[in-house]
Amino acid sequence: MDIAILLFDRFTSLDAVGPYEVLSHLPGATVTFIADETGPKRNDTGSLALVADATLADLPHPDILLVPGGPGQVQAEKDDAILDWLRTAHETTTWTTSVCTGSLVLGAAGLLEGKRATTYWLALDDLARHGAIPTNERVVIDGKVVTAAGVSSGIDMALTLAAEIGGDDLSQMIQLGIEYDPQPPFDSGSEAKAPAHISKIFRDNSRFILES
Amino acid sequence: MDIAILLFDRFTSLDAVGPYEVLSHLPGATVTFIADETGPKRNDTGSLALVADATLADLPHPDILLVPGGPGQVQAEKDDAILDWLRTAHETTTWTTSVCTGSLVLGAAGLLEGKRATTYWLALDDLARHGAIPTNERVVIDGKVVTAAGVSSGIDMALTLAAEIGGDDLSQMIQLGIEYDPQPPFDSGSEAKAPAHISKIFRDNSRFILES
Repeated sequence: MDIAILLFDRFTSLDAVGPYEVLSHLPGATVTFIADETGPKRNDTGSLALVADATLADLPHPDILLVPGGPGQVQAEKDDAILDWLRTAHETTTWTTSVCTGSLVLGAAGLLEGKRATTYWLALDDLARHGAIPTNERVVIDGKVVTAAGVSSGIDMALTLAAEIGGDDLSQMIQLGIEYDPQPPFDSGSEAKAPAHISKIFRDNSRFILES
Repeated sequence: MDIAILLFDRFTSLDAVGPYEVLSHLPGATVTFIADETGPKRNDTGSLALVADATLADLPHPDILLVPGGPGQVQAEKDDAILDWLRTAHETTTWTTSVCTGSLVLGAAGLLEGKRATTYWLALDDLARHGAIPTNERVVIDGKVVTAAGVSSGIDMALTLAAEIGGDDLSQMIQLGIEYDPQPPFDSGSEAKAPAHISKIFRDNSRFILES
């Protein structure tokens, strides 16, 4: 089972590494970070670099593809090499997946037309411009397309996918393996739950947050 | 505020990247991945490489240090360059932190003597050989030493630390920023919660899991 995780400049690291940590434990899975060229790709803050071990051309037909988000999504949406690769790969994938604003890149490739999908909470309305049906849920499955909400939600998405692929026991094994028994000190992880003055700061600066 | 995240061969990627995603959003923070030498370090499965941008010698006195875990911890515990760096850095840190079996590396450096600490659930008893008091909690604070349980717990640890450093509002802002509203499909993230037959597989193979 070939799993390709796309990297591009200014991706958000946890979008990629959260699901990586889950999917890399699927029996028989080979996970490869891919990009336009091999070598390090810097994340949104510039202080982290993940290495792409293969180019898009090296892996045209992965079984599973995953697109992370991050401010670099704005450029990725206009990158013909990425969009062409996504379209071709999607023809033969078992699962086509994204985390955070990665779904907007899937959308730009035309892969979300008429599909229920989610993305980072501040970008949810943007899905409609790609013909998707914005769906405010943490993990959305529509056919073989699985989209996750913001950043950390990729872990939940990947565990959901693990259950679809290998059954409930496998997903629970991986969950115990990564000791995923979340205990955040606050309950502020969604707009509905966060204090209003905190959500407001994000809403007032949404363009800045999404694109810088 | 200088934050150093230690890398070594065969670290577990989410141990490092989970807290990175939180700590890199602290105002005024500069996060640097460091290792014995600069360049890519491969993780436990070998399919992911994070780039170390500085050597241990480059950053002897970070304000915060973080040690991830992973099977490479076995070698890291015997690595004098790492242990010496930890001892020196710890003298002047504001916070000395670890995720998963990273706490055993702190222990090997003598930094957990008499301290309450946690680690990956299968390794909890191992803390005692370093004079620590094994504490079965997800995040343990003892003075300036903060240890987290397995893999994904680094996110909770870093949000706890963010509140200590910058207050509750800051931690909640970062939580909303990474949309950390966990919704795993199962409740299997600790030995107490997982089905008994799943925990047993881990217990029966604990040495294999921790060291390979």
